[in-house]
Amino acid sequence: MNILDIIAKKRDKKELTKEEIEYFVKEYTKNNITDYQAAALVMAIYINGMTERETTDLSISMAYSGDVLDLSSLGEVVDKHSTGGVGDKITLILMPIIASLGIPVAKMSGRGLGFTGGTIDKLESIPGYNTNIEEKEFIENVKKIGISLIGQTLNLAPADKKLYALRDTISCTESITLIASSIMSKKIASGANKIVIDVTCGSGAFMKDRKSAEKLASIMTKIGKLANKETVCIITDMNEPVGHAVGNTLEVIEAINILKGKEMPKDIKNIIEELGANMLMLAKKVENIEEGKKKIIENIQNKKAYKKFMELVENQGGDITYIENTEKFPKAKYIIPIQAKKSGKIQKLDAYKIGMMSAYLGAGRIKKEDKIDKEVGFVLNKKVGDKVEKGEILGYIHANDEEKGKEIQNKDIYEIV
Amino acid sequence: MNILDIIAKKRDKKELTKEEIEYFVKEYTKNNITDYQAAALVMAIYINGMTERETTDLSISMAYSGDVLDLSSLGEVVDKHSTGGVGDKITLILMPIIASLGIPVAKMSGRGLGFTGGTIDKLESIPGYNTNIEEKEFIENVKKIGISLIGQTLNLAPADKKLYALRDTISCTESITLIASSIMSKKIASGANKIVIDVTCGSGAFMKDRKSAEKLASIMTKIGKLANKETVCIITDMNEPVGHAVGNTLEVIEAINILKGKEMPKDIKNIIEELGANMLMLAKKVENIEEGKKKIIENIQNKKAYKKFMELVENQGGDITYIENTEKFPKAKYIIPIQAKKSGKIQKLDAYKIGMMSAYLGAGRIKKEDKIDKEVGFVLNKKVGDKVEKGEILGYIHANDEEKGKEIQNKDIYEIV
Repeated sequence: MNILDIIAKKRDKKELTKEEIEYFVKEYTKNNITDYQAAALVMAIYINGMTERETTDLSISMAYSGDVLDLSSLGEVVDKHSTGGVGDKITLILMPIIASLGIPVAKMSGRGLGFTGGTIDKLESIPGYNTNIEEKEFIENVKKIGISLIGQTLNLAPADKKLYALRDTISCTESITLIASSIMSKKIASGANKIVIDVTCGSGAFMKDRKSAEKLASIMTKIGKLANKETVCIITDMNEPVGHAVGNTLEVIEAINILKGKEMPKDIKNIIEELGANMLMLAKKVENIEEGKKKIIENIQNKKAYKKFMELVENQGGDITYIENTEKFPKAKYIIPIQAKKSGKIQKLDAYKIGMMSAYLGAGRIKKEDKIDKEVGFVLNKKVGDKVEKGEILGYIHANDEEKGKEIQNKDIYEIV
Repeated sequence: MNILDIIAKKRDKKELTKEEIEYFVKEYTKNNITDYQAAALVMAIYINGMTERETTDLSISMAYSGDVLDLSSLGEVVDKHSTGGVGDKITLILMPIIASLGIPVAKMSGRGLGFTGGTIDKLESIPGYNTNIEEKEFIENVKKIGISLIGQTLNLAPADKKLYALRDTISCTESITLIASSIMSKKIASGANKIVIDVTCGSGAFMKDRKSAEKLASIMTKIGKLANKETVCIITDMNEPVGHAVGNTLEVIEAINILKGKEMPKDIKNIIEELGANMLMLAKKVENIEEGKKKIIENIQNKKAYKKFMELVENQGGDITYIENTEKFPKAKYIIPIQAKKSGKIQKLDAYKIGMMSAYLGAGRIKKEDKIDKEVGFVLNKKVGDKVEKGEILGYIHANDEEKGKEIQNKDIYEIV
């Protein structure tokens, strides 16, 4: 087998065999295929596409390019994934609920680049919480208390990491085929047999429109089926941020308050009901979606999910007094109100804009090495559809740099009509 | 301007502006654009194509990525180029004829990879012949005797060299757009205002079929027009080697004998008539092609072309006693006859196969650093269409390695029916 023949085949819009895809992934991971050869092949895939079979083989090959988590000793594990967005603290709320319903939760999360940190960065806002745990202890944790959320301590899908970084430098990020295989490779390597994916759709997401989101969902569902990983995709809105808080510590506080049974924003309720009910269905814990939704909300109301979250934090070395009293979390130096510039109805609260401003405040990473400012972000009490009066406080900017905070205060964060 | 936007545009099958193409060529030459970014763009160009305007801008940008020869002091220079093949010694015969007809010949030739050496390697078979001459002296030579044939002592179209090497490693050599711009970039940098191109077509050429050859010819003619370089393309056959000799010294000897007025193979006669007459037309030396053909043959018969060749060799330090008496040229150690395996008519003498066997004997280069064995090759006295008797000697293998020679002797060099 020979990379020149493989490139030529895809260049000519022919279907690659499983062996050819495996060869490419394996040799590229070992640096036996150069970046420029991979770039040529990736561009040919971008333009000429791949069949579902090819996309599945690419996902599986990338999954097996590194470590693959073995969760077989835990029974039926249902994983949850999101294609990302702004204010997305769903994992922090949903996974304790799921664990409290008797489904083992063993989740390795990434840090991610972009608007705010990943789930792991958010969890690290809790003093003492250890995200750096070896595989054996990780499995022991799940056996003991039914849940563990840690960082990527294994080398999961290194081929995907390499290809993802390459795609970024050659204008090949937006390919749905390549996005689908990237996500599914990580999910396959993560060891769960059943997967629920939150396909976010809107200005703050990878998929900007419904049609692309549906296509991505459809391809991932098919890859899941072909790879023997039952997969359900739920499309959710990401035109405005999810919930009220955007930022690392701020999102953890919002999640804790929701688990404590305080006010739960409607959009968050919808998402956790939908995803949660589907996870319960996959785990065969309920007969239908409606029953699943009821169980999800029930375990918030009866505080079982909150207790599970406390157990999780304590088990991983976190200081639970912060959970009990969220006032203990360090705050940003400047908390600047956002006031309504006129009376009317909120028409738009653009997730992309909020995400970019959060990153500007320091909540996100541009490069892998960047440090995250955990305290900064937004609390957006008013959301699209709310009626407001001129001068009313709609939310707050949390900044550690006063100038940046003031600069943002002067922007049109809310569109009111 | 930004390479990511340029790649994305061509990825989406949009037309690049002149400025975008110039930016890419300039920054890639300066290594400010990486090989993998160039690879992605080249693949997108391969698949999505380029308009004639884009192809012209690419040719001109690559031409101006390095030195551009200034031949303006020589008057109207008509250049000749071939897209390559097996046994192609046309430059050695035609250019002295052209010079003897009063058209200045100032030609920098490459060495080239592949079956046998380039024109410059062939000329270096003549002891003392200096191909390494600076620009100023080169121009002086042409002013003095009307002809100079040298190697590439200037840095002509370095962007093309870089892109050509890259294309080779990413299965992007066969693109007619990219082949056309590569050839035309070198021709534009070579300084002539009028160009005749021999577009070879057949098993031993880049273009395997008539249709591709016609497409290449058509694109190059249009680039020439848009770049203000009047260009005529002639399509010639390369299914069997040109003439009788294949190899470096062997081809020089054949060329000398033709210039001396000895037997001229029909295919060579046709090619030099066609190319030569068109060069005379471009230089406005004749009224029509027929008159041009007559003049070309005339100057062989009256020995003016031979004398011009002698002048050329002498002026560049070569030993003319080798030209006067070609028996002086060193010969390969083993001259092995090729005998007819049966009686009949020669159906095929595959140029590609002969080219590969010549390279195997040592006549060509695989890598730029490879040394060429000047003496080895083939003399193929019988050609397609000739009737032969079983056991008759059809030609000779010239080898310095007896085993390789014998190995080739056992192959089916000629197909007889």
